[in-house]
Amino acid sequence: MTTPQPRDPRIERSVRLVREAALAELAERGYGGFRIESVARRSGVAKSTIYRHWSGRLALVADAFESLDVQPPGGGDAGPVGRARVAELLLHLAAAMRDSTLSGCLPALVEAAEHDGDVRRFLHRFSAGRRQALVDALQEAREAGEVRADLDPEDAALALSGAIIYGRLMTDLRFDAEALDRLAATVLGPAAP
Amino acid sequence: MTTPQPRDPRIERSVRLVREAALAELAERGYGGFRIESVARRSGVAKSTIYRHWSGRLALVADAFESLDVQPPGGGDAGPVGRARVAELLLHLAAAMRDSTLSGCLPALVEAAEHDGDVRRFLHRFSAGRRQALVDALQEAREAGEVRADLDPEDAALALSGAIIYGRLMTDLRFDAEALDRLAATVLGPAAP
Repeated sequence: MTTPQPRDPRIERSVRLVREAALAELAERGYGGFRIESVARRSGVAKSTIYRHWSGRLALVADAFESLDVQPPGGGDAGPVGRARVAELLLHLAAAMRDSTLSGCLPALVEAAEHDGDVRRFLHRFSAGRRQALVDALQEAREAGEVRADLDPEDAALALSGAIIYGRLMTDLRFDAEALDRLAATVLGPAAP
Repeated sequence: MTTPQPRDPRIERSVRLVREAALAELAERGYGGFRIESVARRSGVAKSTIYRHWSGRLALVADAFESLDVQPPGGGDAGPVGRARVAELLLHLAAAMRDSTLSGCLPALVEAAEHDGDVRRFLHRFSAGRRQALVDALQEAREAGEVRADLDPEDAALALSGAIIYGRLMTDLRFDAEALDRLAATVLGPAAP
């Protein structure tokens, strides 16, 4: 899957419009009803132009997901580390699960993944990639003594992301900053004052 | 929504066949493509008979979910309590998420819930009801001193169910007994030896 690397601002704008139209189409019609033609109509970008950038439906949906859900970059000089980085990633995930465009597409993608191996592989890879950032931050937090020494970073990442994503897909619960603090305290133990 | 209370063994058998056919239809066709006619064909039970028992698609799907996913009853004299009851409920949930019929329907239901308020209300109520048993068991475990005193039962239940259900919907991970023990130890702290 190639992600377009636009330079021309007009192309950049078209790419963004197509990605947004693709998510709107997915949320509304589902993956089965998704038509590139309809994405062209929604975005005002010609179908031939769309096919020049993306090989098809899955390439476009995958690129839209990847590029419209960008986790705050870690590992920098100024950014938070360890448990603060965990909190940052949870805030990002919870915001994505409240954002109507992205989280509104997730049910359609989950449903498509059940029947289509390519969609499933994309969804699992996407989800594993996002979760890995959390695993890394939890590992850091453990090395810094900010969580108990026997905490399993993989399981803790599953429990934390799981609560937020399950919350979005199967409950009325949405996590604001306070609820995320409580969730993190539940799974990781109380934060140092 | 009325759940049929069959007494006649022939009726009982028909009810079971229809429920199973409904879940197969839902898993295969999705909620949008779900047809009572097709459930009649799959089950060999007449459409008119189906409509005598269930008012329509959602009533049938809801009843099939409720009756084919029965949590082990708690609060009995012989059953496990507290943390052992938590473990029992997690084993049940993980088994349901491995069972192809029930868990194969979940993506379709999640997708339908996004567009249909009645389905959403059912799914949220179903999920809240199942989670409540876990909350009660966690409360018991806390009162018995089997988990730390400041553990939030609601959040812990979200994290535990969330990991298992998110695991099913968006990852390759499935939880066997050993993985469940590790997950519970992560969220609840190590069990007493």
